[in-house]
Amino acid sequence: MPKRLQYGLALVAALFLAAAGQVQAVLPFHFGLYPAGPLDGITDIPGVRVGHVTLVEGGDVRTGATGIVPTSDPWNNKVSAAALAFNGNGEMTGTHWINTSGYLEVPIVLTNTLNVGLADDGVVDWMIRHYPNVGRTDDVPLPVVAECDDQLLNNIQLRSVKQANIVSVLDDAKEGQFARGSVGAGTGMRAFGFKAGIGSASRVLPADLGGYRIGVLVNDNTGSSREALTIVGVPVGEKLKNEYKTLFPQHLSEATLHGRMESGSIIIVVATNAPLDSRQLHAILLRAALGMGRTGLTSDVGSGDLFVGFSTGYVFKRSAEWKIVAPSTPIVEDNATLNALYRATAEATQAAIYDALFEAKTMTGNGTTVFGLPDDRVLQMLRTAGAIE
Amino acid sequence: MPKRLQYGLALVAALFLAAAGQVQAVLPFHFGLYPAGPLDGITDIPGVRVGHVTLVEGGDVRTGATGIVPTSDPWNNKVSAAALAFNGNGEMTGTHWINTSGYLEVPIVLTNTLNVGLADDGVVDWMIRHYPNVGRTDDVPLPVVAECDDQLLNNIQLRSVKQANIVSVLDDAKEGQFARGSVGAGTGMRAFGFKAGIGSASRVLPADLGGYRIGVLVNDNTGSSREALTIVGVPVGEKLKNEYKTLFPQHLSEATLHGRMESGSIIIVVATNAPLDSRQLHAILLRAALGMGRTGLTSDVGSGDLFVGFSTGYVFKRSAEWKIVAPSTPIVEDNATLNALYRATAEATQAAIYDALFEAKTMTGNGTTVFGLPDDRVLQMLRTAGAIE
Amino acid sequence: MPKRLQYGLALVAALFLAAAGQVQAVLPFHFGLYPAGPLDGITDIPGVRVGHVTLVEGGDVRTGATGIVPTSDPWNNKVSAAALAFNGNGEMTGTHWINTSGYLEVPIVLTNTLNVGLADDGVVDWMIRHYPNVGRTDDVPLPVVAECDDQLLNNIQLRSVKQANIVSVLDDAKEGQFARGSVGAGTGMRAFGFKAGIGSASRVLPADLGGYRIGVLVNDNTGSSREALTIVGVPVGEKLKNEYKTLFPQHLSEATLHGRMESGSIIIVVATNAPLDSRQLHAILLRAALGMGRTGLTSDVGSGDLFVGFSTGYVFKRSAEWKIVAPSTPIVEDNATLNALYRATAEATQAAIYDALFEAKTMTGNGTTVFGLPDDRVLQMLRTAGAIE
Amino acid sequence: MPKRLQYGLALVAALFLAAAGQVQAVLPFHFGLYPAGPLDGITDIPGVRVGHVTLVEGGDVRTGATGIVPTSDPWNNKVSAAALAFNGNGEMTGTHWINTSGYLEVPIVLTNTLNVGLADDGVVDWMIRHYPNVGRTDDVPLPVVAECDDQLLNNIQLRSVKQANIVSVLDDAKEGQFARGSVGAGTGMRAFGFKAGIGSASRVLPADLGGYRIGVLVNDNTGSSREALTIVGVPVGEKLKNEYKTLFPQHLSEATLHGRMESGSIIIVVATNAPLDSRQLHAILLRAALGMGRTGLTSDVGSGDLFVGFSTGYVFKRSAEWKIVAPSTPIVEDNATLNALYRATAEATQAAIYDALFEAKTMTGNGTTVFGLPDDRVLQMLRTAGAIE
Repeated sequence: MPKRLQYGLALVAALFLAAAGQVQAVLPFHFGLYPAGPLDGITDIPGVRVGHVTLVEGGDVRTGATGIVPTSDPWNNKVSAAALAFNGNGEMTGTHWINTSGYLEVPIVLTNTLNVGLADDGVVDWMIRHYPNVGRTDDVPLPVVAECDDQLLNNIQLRSVKQANIVSVLDDAKEGQFARGSVGAGTGMRAFGFKAGIGSASRVLPADLGGYRIGVLVNDNTGSSREALTIVGVPVGEKLKNEYKTLFPQHLSEATLHGRMESGSIIIVVATNAPLDSRQLHAILLRAALGMGRTGLTSDVGSGDLFVGFSTGYVFKRSAEWKIVAPSTPIVEDNATLNALYRATAEATQAAIYDALFEAKTMTGNGTTVFGLPDDRVLQMLRTAGAIE
Repeated sequence: MPKRLQYGLALVAALFLAAAGQVQAVLPFHFGLYPAGPLDGITDIPGVRVGHVTLVEGGDVRTGATGIVPTSDPWNNKVSAAALAFNGNGEMTGTHWINTSGYLEVPIVLTNTLNVGLADDGVVDWMIRHYPNVGRTDDVPLPVVAECDDQLLNNIQLRSVKQANIVSVLDDAKEGQFARGSVGAGTGMRAFGFKAGIGSASRVLPADLGGYRIGVLVNDNTGSSREALTIVGVPVGEKLKNEYKTLFPQHLSEATLHGRMESGSIIIVVATNAPLDSRQLHAILLRAALGMGRTGLTSDVGSGDLFVGFSTGYVFKRSAEWKIVAPSTPIVEDNATLNALYRATAEATQAAIYDALFEAKTMTGNGTTVFGLPDDRVLQMLRTAGAIE
Repeated sequence: MPKRLQYGLALVAALFLAAAGQVQAVLPFHFGLYPAGPLDGITDIPGVRVGHVTLVEGGDVRTGATGIVPTSDPWNNKVSAAALAFNGNGEMTGTHWINTSGYLEVPIVLTNTLNVGLADDGVVDWMIRHYPNVGRTDDVPLPVVAECDDQLLNNIQLRSVKQANIVSVLDDAKEGQFARGSVGAGTGMRAFGFKAGIGSASRVLPADLGGYRIGVLVNDNTGSSREALTIVGVPVGEKLKNEYKTLFPQHLSEATLHGRMESGSIIIVVATNAPLDSRQLHAILLRAALGMGRTGLTSDVGSGDLFVGFSTGYVFKRSAEWKIVAPSTPIVEDNATLNALYRATAEATQAAIYDALFEAKTMTGNGTTVFGLPDDRVLQMLRTAGAIE
Repeated sequence: MPKRLQYGLALVAALFLAAAGQVQAVLPFHFGLYPAGPLDGITDIPGVRVGHVTLVEGGDVRTGATGIVPTSDPWNNKVSAAALAFNGNGEMTGTHWINTSGYLEVPIVLTNTLNVGLADDGVVDWMIRHYPNVGRTDDVPLPVVAECDDQLLNNIQLRSVKQANIVSVLDDAKEGQFARGSVGAGTGMRAFGFKAGIGSASRVLPADLGGYRIGVLVNDNTGSSREALTIVGVPVGEKLKNEYKTLFPQHLSEATLHGRMESGSIIIVVATNAPLDSRQLHAILLRAALGMGRTGLTSDVGSGDLFVGFSTGYVFKRSAEWKIVAPSTPIVEDNATLNALYRATAEATQAAIYDALFEAKTMTGNGTTVFGLPDDRVLQMLRTAGAIE
């Protein structure tokens, strides 16, 4: 097994700045109707934990995994959930059971496409470790593993993410601020022709609408459509379309480049503490799609745009092995609150995609160099257009 | 039965201007990756016909119906089709059969909510007139009727649209340019707190991507969320949020106003001549949703956001009574072409929504006055922001 | 407008026998794991009301309508609900909102295919009469109207069911026993080449599984596939395939006969008092399909197999105009109870289909004679095979 | 009842061969409207290959894997496909892409629940071996792996199926007859309280309906509901409910036994050579559910009833890396043919489930003994009831 390097400097810096209360770990501007939570991330939903393993080694390992643990004890406190394939050119396992049961009882793991199998097996390891009776005297878990293809920067056939990495990611997942950009499953991602990866954002509803929170985490790998990139309404991609072009190795044929250009995916995870059932979370995920669309994306044929949402406010409890008790909390039914949750979801998704771009820096891998978004230049464009202050 | 007035002046003017080659019948600016077709409307798809009946009478009749006939002989030339309820607080009949069969064999009719029944019966009248054997020696038709609620400006309990109106609308439907704004089913609509109604737009792919066309027609009734209105990225609604406020009659309670404010719907009809099957048209409709999202909408709980798409390029032919023959045309499978169709759909949907706003003028009905979008002022805003030339 | 005859004698007799405590209004045998309720019908669910209007006139009017009112005040007490198009060659309106909202707030009306429009308009009449503020200061209703094609026995182009019939059906709908067979929407139906129509059945769970009830009402029009008919496992249709053949008028061509033979539909309405949400009711409807399959049906291409289910045990209450409050009852989560509900649903659906056949008698209409199932002979077959006692 | 013709020579040959090697390879009786193909199995569809790896070791390894390769070169000849979660308490990976693309481009692998990860990784190994450019210069594959829980007889936490097993299974998969019962993924299965596992069956349409074939393979693990078992209409399970009871080890608690009793799953794979698109194959899979229901199953809450169907008659060809060409074959549109395909699917599914029971023999594992169906006794019951000759 190759040696693993934690993708050090950037991560440390991000965490340091975040700890210092600065915005460097989060999107450097705000937009929309609702304020962000204190972390401007999915961990603004109390109890949600995030962890990464980042594998950068030699010239051709640029990959990793990201774990989202929905609550401290998911097997015994199953959170209400829904899953949606907006465009299904990709994998998110475990969705049949999410949609049939209406809940999520395992962590969510993101990784590269060909690592889905080992990551799934790693989730099983972690589940057995924490719930030793699964498959013995208790029911079996069905892992939720979602992928994006990082073959551009990573030798994906290697399947560098091993089961032990997954166990670590899940054990090390923490509440509070976390790194974004080229970390974890986001390590080898590219979106709009820029370096991308993990992004996150959150929105908080006013107190008179319950004060509920929406947190979104994305792994953005939406490919090459530079000219489509729109940031808070400003056609940034159009302005930058002839710059920062990815440097491809010479041995790749036109057909391969063209194929890869058409390819791309995004995984969107939406969390909330508003008590919503699976039917309502399905509606929430459709609004995540609308937020995605506002960045200029139209969800290509080659895109695995797979979404999962959960609510820590509507919980199915395990009362004993093989026994589950339904929530007694009523779901949110007030239209004004639901509409606000929809808007907050669209805003947070849009912001999370921007965050992925702003946090990810230029990376070379597999003979290819993908440039990071020129943050300062873009911020200046947004200011000039009056889109941000 | 009350007397019917053709909503004359505006309609005549629109048609006159259109005939004169001016853009007044269509959106006065262009945006996006692909050019519009010559009519910038759904009738840019050869064979597609549109008709309206507009009922404006006394103080409280502000309603109508719009017919879209997908091809000159839909019962014998069934166009490939799909339907989607993005948010189902509304009605579009006939969708079970569209999605099961993969085709559309009747016209599409749009009207007000409580007129769905009579409009359905009117479609049956029209079908019997044109296909006298239906239900006798041939199969029965299942009408496709979709609605939006115009109770704000119209006494909707009256059900002013009668069967004969529907027969006329469908018989009078024509290829070529057609009126938009407060006409037909759009007569009593309101969106973003402005007068709205029927809008349409089209996009044409480059010749090397087949030169296919996408045409969209919307009936936009998406309500009150003024501050959300975003036109080609410019937050126009935010700038106008304290002006042009709808004048409500005093007798309406706060609760009623509040309820109506939360309510709203949009019907989206997408047509193309690209050979696409039902599965692919379903994907197209999801991209229409993304275009819708770019106007600032997030599809409220109270919204009937119901979409139907069809392709005149993939046709199931009736060879005899009760006998249908599948298309022998291969569907489009090239990713570049499909992605372009997706983008064109999103663009045309976004443009059609703007068109509805730009074409509809201030209207009073049912004691309520809804103001039209201040077109020139908005165009100036867009120019100032550099969003249009 | 032609004169209407209430389809007197048979109806009166059925009700008389039912009132006298005899089994003639219900299936004359029982099968399955769970007992039937006292009425062996959908009205075993407390609060559910059923009504019929039966139109038999001259030689070619053999049609009607059936209303199912889910609760005494559906607009204010919205019952949890789901709808499913198992095969969508037919119409059931109102399903977009059922599946989006998770509830049903209007009555369900069944009628013939070309009468959907007028029946829809009749439901609007009834709603306005009972809830005069709908569409004025309150939200608008979306009727649920489902159809089967009775062109075989009925001049369907006449659209003999008028709005006033629908208002009567709904106002006259009652709790307690009700007529089945060739009544209401079932008047002109044919299934397995026998006369069919309305059937109903129920099942009651044991007390230790909550004592919940499942009631099913079907309108069975599943056509001509005589040889497929299987009654509690006995291939009755195979034995009777050369007898009781429908007498068609000579003027019908082979193609027409063939087309009609391939056509057919079934509407299935499932009611329960178990607290189930929309997601769970969707699962219940899939089990109704399994019960349907046990009669030998395979849901033909030409079949409108449209199902709706509701629970009076999980109710969304209107607290004011435009305001709804979610249920505070927890949903059933116990697997044993849910599995029993699934089985009870399959059994009651299967029984309801048999009931439709056993209750419907030979009828001539439109120049065609459809024979009723030879009840006594079939019962003897079942006894001989040991399938019933 | 008409005389049944045992499809003579082929069956005799099959039985002879089976007797020479193992026990009966196919169901020892026939029922239904359509004859079986020569192998009465999924391999009656030309080009379809099946392989097994069966792991029986020590006291607690009773598991394996089964591979179905849809065509000799699936990556380059993608077969039209659809997937359906009838009840989603289980895993079948790869379904998002099947339903979005409308095709299947990888083998299907069945295994135990906790082995999904390693099996997925094994499919990746196999794909890389056969298509070395995947993930390098070509697109990445998304494996289709489906599972059933064999914890009753197998120590499922061991994950005994390794990647190399999967590679072997797929490389060794063959056309022609194959073993059924307790083999491959079926090794540790139990259904209706009897030993079960892999079953298969086929049906052939008459020449005037195209002569198309339907082949079904199931992995039946549908648990404990003995009393529900119905074989061609005969309530066999009811008669045997107090015999052949599974012998559980004493250390298992009542709760565990109860939980396991409620659990169970079935994977259904349907193949055809009729040219059907994804939409139509979705309809086919719903009819597989109806066939399943005829065995007495109602698809429990704890059941992973996951279905995938494909057509070798409607093929998307890879013309170059990243390039696919749509089929030019028209889909079947004739109702009579489609209805026959639906019935054939229901029949073949029902037969395949019976086959799984008839082929599987008593097995002890993990301290538990599950008895095989007493074949001769059951055949006698069927003869006595007149259900078979």
